[in-house]
Amino acid sequence: MEQVSANKSHGGVQSVYKHQSAVTKTEMTFSVFVPDHEPGVRLPVLWYLSGLTCTHANVTEKGEYRAACAEHGIIFVAPDTSPRGPDRDGKDVPDDAESAYDFGLGAGFYVNATQAPFATHYHMRDYIEAELPALIADHFPADMNRQGITGHSMGGHGALTIALRNSGRFRSVSAFSPIVSPMNCPWGHKALSGYLGEASADWADYDACALIDNGARLPNLLVDQGDADIFLEGQLKTHLLREACNRAGQPATIRMQSGYDHSYYFISTFMADHVGWHAARLK
Amino acid sequence: MEQVSANKSHGGVQSVYKHQSAVTKTEMTFSVFVPDHEPGVRLPVLWYLSGLTCTHANVTEKGEYRAACAEHGIIFVAPDTSPRGPDRDGKDVPDDAESAYDFGLGAGFYVNATQAPFATHYHMRDYIEAELPALIADHFPADMNRQGITGHSMGGHGALTIALRNSGRFRSVSAFSPIVSPMNCPWGHKALSGYLGEASADWADYDACALIDNGARLPNLLVDQGDADIFLEGQLKTHLLREACNRAGQPATIRMQSGYDHSYYFISTFMADHVGWHAARLK
Repeated sequence: MEQVSANKSHGGVQSVYKHQSAVTKTEMTFSVFVPDHEPGVRLPVLWYLSGLTCTHANVTEKGEYRAACAEHGIIFVAPDTSPRGPDRDGKDVPDDAESAYDFGLGAGFYVNATQAPFATHYHMRDYIEAELPALIADHFPADMNRQGITGHSMGGHGALTIALRNSGRFRSVSAFSPIVSPMNCPWGHKALSGYLGEASADWADYDACALIDNGARLPNLLVDQGDADIFLEGQLKTHLLREACNRAGQPATIRMQSGYDHSYYFISTFMADHVGWHAARLK
Repeated sequence: MEQVSANKSHGGVQSVYKHQSAVTKTEMTFSVFVPDHEPGVRLPVLWYLSGLTCTHANVTEKGEYRAACAEHGIIFVAPDTSPRGPDRDGKDVPDDAESAYDFGLGAGFYVNATQAPFATHYHMRDYIEAELPALIADHFPADMNRQGITGHSMGGHGALTIALRNSGRFRSVSAFSPIVSPMNCPWGHKALSGYLGEASADWADYDACALIDNGARLPNLLVDQGDADIFLEGQLKTHLLREACNRAGQPATIRMQSGYDHSYYFISTFMADHVGWHAARLK
């Protein structure tokens, strides 16, 4: 693991690291904020999964999480959204055939791809669920018994589905404008078809509403969604999550925020609130 | 004036505008955050002048000022750092001969240039002191009797010198890692020589320490400077400002911040503190 940068901020250290991933077979980059803390203390960890087109850098620069994480003593980890290459042989990893923003690079959808040519590298599920947590546990003062997870858009989908599939791992789960049902929106159809094949039985493993319908449960859930978000009606479909939670008796606080869009101007507005909400459950 | 973007954030609106500047004879872009407010109310204005290489976008994305400005009800204005062209005839504005980062584009140094070929466009002093304030007063709910000013690095130099030359205009003045004496550092020598000519008598109008020595005064002053800033010793020379203030009896709070560098990770750490400090003096 190689440190790319380290900057003191809000009393702690904001760092960026890169490492060779056995799972994606590429170099991977992530950022981590470690608040000031007493020597020997282990701190809870909040995972933040980013949305389409993003790297670790978007939330690191624009997310406005450090003040709240410093206040509450929480480590904040922001991974990338796909493998990016070059791979071990120096070759580029495959991208969308037309380099579209919603598939391939920057759009890993937190799945383990089974379809060529993506199956070799696009294993973001295993990367986030297994490889990166082991690195975090080894290299940072992290208490892995106190983890929360959140994310934005495609990363909100990632946070929800990873928490639903890993029962008991996360004490707190939230999301900003998540894709709640990839099986029922164009972004999701394209990603699931491309990575998993048409109408594969695996699709339901990557759909928060289907997982809830099939019996998976979250310890709790906070969602913020802007009502001026241009993706709300066609892609995000927040109402499907509300309906699935209602059907299942899954407790959830799903808030529509008046006038807010899909950008980091929205995310940063509610970030401190989410960090505080996680902190209350990670204490 | 044309609105480039508008995003709801922290209860207010973060906008970007562009307009044709009579002063720089180019299009100019700036950002403005207007907090939520009662109809008809006029709010105090905090100016933020950016440093070398920056546009309005750096602080707008990374500055973490909106939560504090929303809390205190302060309008936050972030101009660009130089003209950028094209000019009215569609021509590029002149840049540094070798496109260096410390002169020309992104490096206007808040002066009125007198030397060819810069004298035609590089009038950032008049732009910040006269043209942009008139636009802000006309188009936003701004109380121009309650203005504060701050800035970073070259923009800290801008904030200090503009406040020193315009006695009584600003009720509060602060800076993050300012260039305190362009006459006594390489960045300043290059800029003042290039824009004003070698050893011109005008240089002292653009040097905070010289202005203080010559009798100009600030209503108050707060400076934060990281002691791990790689530019501290060779360019910023905070001690020269401390000495000038001591000689003149100019009240000043100049704080060295342990472990912090020159980046927005430093600025954002102390931004809420600066906004609160201005707010107390703009009430």
